[in-house]
Amino acid sequence: MRIGLDMMGGDYAPVEAVKGVKLFLDTVAADAHLVLIGDEAALAPLLSEAQLDQSKYSVVHSSQVIGMNEHPTKALKEKQHSSISIGFHLLQSGKIDAFISAGNTGAMMVGTFYSIKAIEGVQRPTISTPVPRLDGSLGLLLDVGINADCKAENLLQFAILGSLYSRHILNVSNPTVGLLNIGEEEGKGNLLAQATYPLLKEHPELNFIGNVEGRDVLTGKADVIVCEGFTGNVVLKMAESLHDIAVQRNINDEYMDRFNFQSYGGTPVLGVSKPVIIGHGISKDTAFKNMIVLAQQMIETKLLEKIRESFVK
Amino acid sequence: MRIGLDMMGGDYAPVEAVKGVKLFLDTVAADAHLVLIGDEAALAPLLSEAQLDQSKYSVVHSSQVIGMNEHPTKALKEKQHSSISIGFHLLQSGKIDAFISAGNTGAMMVGTFYSIKAIEGVQRPTISTPVPRLDGSLGLLLDVGINADCKAENLLQFAILGSLYSRHILNVSNPTVGLLNIGEEEGKGNLLAQATYPLLKEHPELNFIGNVEGRDVLTGKADVIVCEGFTGNVVLKMAESLHDIAVQRNINDEYMDRFNFQSYGGTPVLGVSKPVIIGHGISKDTAFKNMIVLAQQMIETKLLEKIRESFVK
Repeated sequence: MRIGLDMMGGDYAPVEAVKGVKLFLDTVAADAHLVLIGDEAALAPLLSEAQLDQSKYSVVHSSQVIGMNEHPTKALKEKQHSSISIGFHLLQSGKIDAFISAGNTGAMMVGTFYSIKAIEGVQRPTISTPVPRLDGSLGLLLDVGINADCKAENLLQFAILGSLYSRHILNVSNPTVGLLNIGEEEGKGNLLAQATYPLLKEHPELNFIGNVEGRDVLTGKADVIVCEGFTGNVVLKMAESLHDIAVQRNINDEYMDRFNFQSYGGTPVLGVSKPVIIGHGISKDTAFKNMIVLAQQMIETKLLEKIRESFVK
Repeated sequence: MRIGLDMMGGDYAPVEAVKGVKLFLDTVAADAHLVLIGDEAALAPLLSEAQLDQSKYSVVHSSQVIGMNEHPTKALKEKQHSSISIGFHLLQSGKIDAFISAGNTGAMMVGTFYSIKAIEGVQRPTISTPVPRLDGSLGLLLDVGINADCKAENLLQFAILGSLYSRHILNVSNPTVGLLNIGEEEGKGNLLAQATYPLLKEHPELNFIGNVEGRDVLTGKADVIVCEGFTGNVVLKMAESLHDIAVQRNINDEYMDRFNFQSYGGTPVLGVSKPVIIGHGISKDTAFKNMIVLAQQMIETKLLEKIRESFVK
């Protein structure tokens, strides 16, 4: 298993990326070989200082970096030697089995769609967020931003993808699925929610429990909550702001601490043919480590094969 | 000035409604005469016990109550002697200048649209919520649920209505308006947000500051935040749940306390020709008092005339 990591992506790269690699190698039992993609000259002293087991990683040199605010398509086209471009090239050609970056999100999305494509039958790949819940567990909310306008069929597919992720990665045995809505009863909501409800209700593989409301997001009413990416993104960013509020208000509470989304690592692009994980720009060592762990889990659990089987039917 | 109050609406009526009336009369300097609509037999002992100044109120008897879960249209049609039906009748005929109820929200909406109608030029009346902000002030978010599917023109009108409300009721001198969106730059977002942005930008009466994101809702980036009612409702209910979370986690923080939405009273239906205020079902005395205060403010500031002038242009 070879996991590729963009060492130049994110606000604190490459320092925190190297720290994350060290944290992973020091604390996680792993068969994975890490392929570190980045500027050799910048990485060499950091890697040397970190005193890593050299059998556990190799470095692939990249001479360019795509900046956080560059235009994704343009940057990918013009910077073929960037760490993100090289990462997708390695992934496409099978030289790595997963690719992780905390760099330019748009470039990661475009790169994903251009190089490795969607799994057959998946209309819209999606990104999700873990939701810290009051009972200590993690829920899953999707889509959180790449599909701002959706059809009911898209939301049905998000529910399937989310259920598989919840089952195999979050270890929820029979994950409940809720439709984010503005009322509890069937028939409530906007046109999209009204059209989605019967699709979720009738799908044989989903453990659909009906509508959930804004108040249910944090309380754990459903293990997987589906919505279009507009509302999901607003909910995610509002949840992220709770961490800032807790810090600013000097609120010391274990639950509020869990809104530090940085600690979760990154989000996989669900529904594409190989594991791609996109990290937050502010990722630090723990986030990088967690993203490597997630890539390893996605490979070990054969999540993508399970998604493929589900969509072949 | 005569303000009508449904004494039978809400989970704790009529006891808390009477307490709210007492709180209002005891603590607020008011020229308002209160018209208390409810079951005389039920109200008499409570009013007597409260020892209110009898010149400040009168009672209008209603022999029926519309339950919280009754079908709105059906209930209004079949229960002509309910407190809500009588309230709208009094409002329509000019015997009261404002009507307040914490009862069946659907019946309040239907009653509003059937009896007093929208102000000319307003396509979709709207409801809003105050947003407790970190700096201690209150923002305004709208729509929060009655318009789940919207066009860009509707959001433009919400922005105008919200700005007038913010200026005249919340005393913000030149309220900033933000479009709730999933990115900062113009051009981001779903189709609705993309279509709405230029309308807000070009409107001469709006102090439009661009897109705001989920993380900006609680931090006060804009005084008025507009969105369709689906996202707005999810945001509102998620914000409401923060109060439950603070209670459950035993978090004692002044800012978190302010997510007890019950204390704000109710929401006016903005864009209709007379003041109608809808309270939360769980309203208690402070909520009832605050709704009466709000009705009084709406009348004193001539808010509805200002809305009318704005939409005549």
